[in-house]
Amino acid sequence: MAIPPKEPLRYPVTAGSTAVICVDMQNIFCDPRDPVNEMVPSIIPNVQALLAAAREAGLPVIYLRHVVRGDGSDTGRMKDISPQVDERLKAGTWNVEIIPELTPEPGDIVVDKPFFGGFTGTDLDTILRGKGIDTAIICGTRTNICCETTARQATEREYKVIFASDANAASGKPDMGWGEVSAEENHRMALTILACNFARVASTAEILAEIRALKGLQAAS
Amino acid sequence: MAIPPKEPLRYPVTAGSTAVICVDMQNIFCDPRDPVNEMVPSIIPNVQALLAAAREAGLPVIYLRHVVRGDGSDTGRMKDISPQVDERLKAGTWNVEIIPELTPEPGDIVVDKPFFGGFTGTDLDTILRGKGIDTAIICGTRTNICCETTARQATEREYKVIFASDANAASGKPDMGWGEVSAEENHRMALTILACNFARVASTAEILAEIRALKGLQAAS
Repeated sequence: MAIPPKEPLRYPVTAGSTAVICVDMQNIFCDPRDPVNEMVPSIIPNVQALLAAAREAGLPVIYLRHVVRGDGSDTGRMKDISPQVDERLKAGTWNVEIIPELTPEPGDIVVDKPFFGGFTGTDLDTILRGKGIDTAIICGTRTNICCETTARQATEREYKVIFASDANAASGKPDMGWGEVSAEENHRMALTILACNFARVASTAEILAEIRALKGLQAAS
Repeated sequence: MAIPPKEPLRYPVTAGSTAVICVDMQNIFCDPRDPVNEMVPSIIPNVQALLAAAREAGLPVIYLRHVVRGDGSDTGRMKDISPQVDERLKAGTWNVEIIPELTPEPGDIVVDKPFFGGFTGTDLDTILRGKGIDTAIICGTRTNICCETTARQATEREYKVIFASDANAASGKPDMGWGEVSAEENHRMALTILACNFARVASTAEILAEIRALKGLQAAS
């Protein structure tokens, strides 16, 4: 049957009320030796550019990391989904550190979360509200899981989400009964669903141009 | 690159701590004259069977409906996404009523929600906790939007989610820049992502057998 067209969301990058949220760019989810991280190397330059532009324009930069206590106390359903989570994402280990290419800078904020969503069991909402943020640019890994869950959570908390199409990385999915799915297919589908129902989806180049235009506005004022 | 296999989640249907959540089976989202509802007719018998079996086994049946005030006061981002939402989902109209094939019965609970997720702005969590529910069977429409958002929310609230593969209906998505997606493709991808990271995905027949076995257990005890 014919699928009716849909007008995309057009949230602008705004001065004073936009933050960049960089999701899970930590060693374990970026290690190029792990095939599930295959898309990550391609997005690192884009994430670097977004964070650098945000800092220069005075937009808050917020890193999310998936980190657990390691004693099993904060991993219920998460441990069902990923039985090794207490070892793999234990606080203080190399696995949970942000990759060297994206080391947080002074003034950046790091939020550790025990699950996929940035708002689950964290002070992210408090931080964003305290700063008067109403628009969140989302980049990082992985598109369908932590990035998309955080985007859905933000939208349902009334934030305006701008999802960077080429600064989020997906992974492939095995055949769970409905066929194997490549990282590229997974990524494309997530962008389509996000663009239809949850977020403005825009390229890094588009977002960078808007962030840089803000800086020009601020310099001129 | 090779995609590593993943063990599926195996949450059982349990006596006394499982509820069935029936998502958005309301006139507007089921009307067969609207092509976006193309998958809905095929799931109605399965949803009917799940709800009937749940009632017979004494499992709570909870309906979600997407309903807004209609005065614009509770539609911020939702109105950005769906500009006609205040007319289309206004409380008291035919659009928001549960379809006649699934009319709620005495003892069922109806929860109205102003957004996609069942937990957003509602008392769903209070209801489930109050009843000691830790496992939620999800059926209804639409797979990727309200059903999947509710599933992700439930999982991150530590509920065990059982997602009915053939009692949830997806819609097709237009080309937002990454190609048109059919309802079937959308549905298949959502089931794969849910099965990998958020839920047990099981057929109506499997779930029905487990619900009916509970009833047998109860009768024998």
